[in-house]
Amino acid sequence: MARDVNRQWLLRARPEGRIKATDFELVERDVPTAGAGEAIARLLYLSLDPTNRVWVNDAESYLPPVQIGEVMRGGGIAQVVESNTPMYAVGDLVSGLTGWQDYVRLDAGAMVQPLPKGLSVPPEVFLGVLGFTGLTAYFGLLDVGQPQAGETVVISAAAGATGSVVGQIARIKGCRAVGIAGGPEKCRWLTDELGFDAAVDYKADGWTRRLREACPNGIDVNFENVGGTMMDEVMSLMNLNGRVALCGMISGYNSDETMRGRFDVILMKRLQVRGFIVLDYLPRFAEGVTQLAQWYAEGRVKHRDTIVTGLEQAPTALNMLFDGRNFGKLLIKVADP
Amino acid sequence: MARDVNRQWLLRARPEGRIKATDFELVERDVPTAGAGEAIARLLYLSLDPTNRVWVNDAESYLPPVQIGEVMRGGGIAQVVESNTPMYAVGDLVSGLTGWQDYVRLDAGAMVQPLPKGLSVPPEVFLGVLGFTGLTAYFGLLDVGQPQAGETVVISAAAGATGSVVGQIARIKGCRAVGIAGGPEKCRWLTDELGFDAAVDYKADGWTRRLREACPNGIDVNFENVGGTMMDEVMSLMNLNGRVALCGMISGYNSDETMRGRFDVILMKRLQVRGFIVLDYLPRFAEGVTQLAQWYAEGRVKHRDTIVTGLEQAPTALNMLFDGRNFGKLLIKVADP
Repeated sequence: MARDVNRQWLLRARPEGRIKATDFELVERDVPTAGAGEAIARLLYLSLDPTNRVWVNDAESYLPPVQIGEVMRGGGIAQVVESNTPMYAVGDLVSGLTGWQDYVRLDAGAMVQPLPKGLSVPPEVFLGVLGFTGLTAYFGLLDVGQPQAGETVVISAAAGATGSVVGQIARIKGCRAVGIAGGPEKCRWLTDELGFDAAVDYKADGWTRRLREACPNGIDVNFENVGGTMMDEVMSLMNLNGRVALCGMISGYNSDETMRGRFDVILMKRLQVRGFIVLDYLPRFAEGVTQLAQWYAEGRVKHRDTIVTGLEQAPTALNMLFDGRNFGKLLIKVADP
Repeated sequence: MARDVNRQWLLRARPEGRIKATDFELVERDVPTAGAGEAIARLLYLSLDPTNRVWVNDAESYLPPVQIGEVMRGGGIAQVVESNTPMYAVGDLVSGLTGWQDYVRLDAGAMVQPLPKGLSVPPEVFLGVLGFTGLTAYFGLLDVGQPQAGETVVISAAAGATGSVVGQIARIKGCRAVGIAGGPEKCRWLTDELGFDAAVDYKADGWTRRLREACPNGIDVNFENVGGTMMDEVMSLMNLNGRVALCGMISGYNSDETMRGRFDVILMKRLQVRGFIVLDYLPRFAEGVTQLAQWYAEGRVKHRDTIVTGLEQAPTALNMLFDGRNFGKLLIKVADP
């Protein structure tokens, strides 16, 4: 099902609040051809992540904003369909910042890496447990959160792609893993299938009381994905010398309001709060992937994907993250290998 | 001028906002006498610190709140006037949590330490540069802030007891020290006498622009004493991987409002924000005092005290800290040695 056009999602307007259909435009371009030393790869899967929403704001973040008229930035898995370089053979799989498009040019500036050959797992796992998502969980929890066996780790957006891995690693490290998620189905998944010690449904009445009950010894590590009032509640239960691994604050990404948090608790409880992104750990990716692959093979780290079919769905599907409509990793299936 | 009564400031009401005269009551009690194994010491100096205001709130902090009817907690220097223990001789000086009173009982539970004998410096320096204040600056900057030579360190409340020491240590360590203080006189003191590279008067028009100009390479370390909108401005200039040593937030202590700060910057700039109190460094106090004493003797760390005479002034004098009316360390002189 190779296409004879290259569909590209261009950013047309800076979204105000939730992403609207008119913020992006799907255009059709010619399929690119490989120049000397280049290759062309076709998108198989696109990864949808909360941070995509941050990239379209006209504001400083850890990457420059996507400019109006540019192809939307995004992570994906692509397969080489044409090659003028010994670096890639036709059929090879690559992972990286492919963008929201059918075809990506692999030139010297392409931010992609080849996937290992002869995979025993589906390639899309390299967008999840064995990709940026899993590595975010791995380094964020272990390096930033520094959990000790016996400590309590609380994870917000725990049924999301990253959160679900964080809790499983916390269990492997001998911690009490408590997830916060929306709805009984997600909470059951966390406890019954992923082995979380407890899961708290923030949509249920009295959820803050349930959170306290789920953390009888307080909270030592907060892996924070949500921000806002949910983070406030978690902060209020932090123990002395606790650590907050600040991974994201999805509750604030659709708003212009400055994302704030409780500095009074940081001071009084002598917390350490650290923001991080997975790219900071690039030199240690091999370590992380090796460990995650072992846990994955042993069945100690499980995953679940929510897959939406069709590149044309990308902008609307992105809103699913903000509505909590995904279990685990949210992916767009663009084409079959 | 030994008194025949022991005046004590008792907490009578939990202050709302600024401390009022009616929040405390000065009572006269008999001078205590030393039981077996005890000593009695007479207050010479009382240390007034922003944290005193925190202690009278009915809220969790790093020490339990002072209870209504109790003698107000406070740090001081006292001289032994009666002793039934070989631990203390009459005339010895002690430093610690003496409370707001003329006489303090030195029993097994007393939180005081003897000062070195044969001092070559005035005893009140052990409430400032060579006491908790200097140690707060020393460990907060070096251990929490981790400044590297060539980096820019910004200090709020820079003309206060702690801030003025922080900037001088930052200079010793080869950093650019930029202080924020109220009024031209304080700013001149910081640059002309203490050697700060720059001082920004937050009461002057355009002070945020001046702060930016004073930090042409951004801010690597923020030693935070003030909080609120001033902290917001500093946060907006923080560099990637910057550190915030959260020592205090005096702008919020007279308010019921939760003290918040910019978590968006923590995330996007991958900052490390850590709250601390000097008591956490008790095992390393000897190291700190030794180093500070050397710098002090060499004239590399200077100090200035604002001294108010009379224990009866304590509650009203405490408000001077919140009005910025002190240069350096604010002390109450209670009695002559």
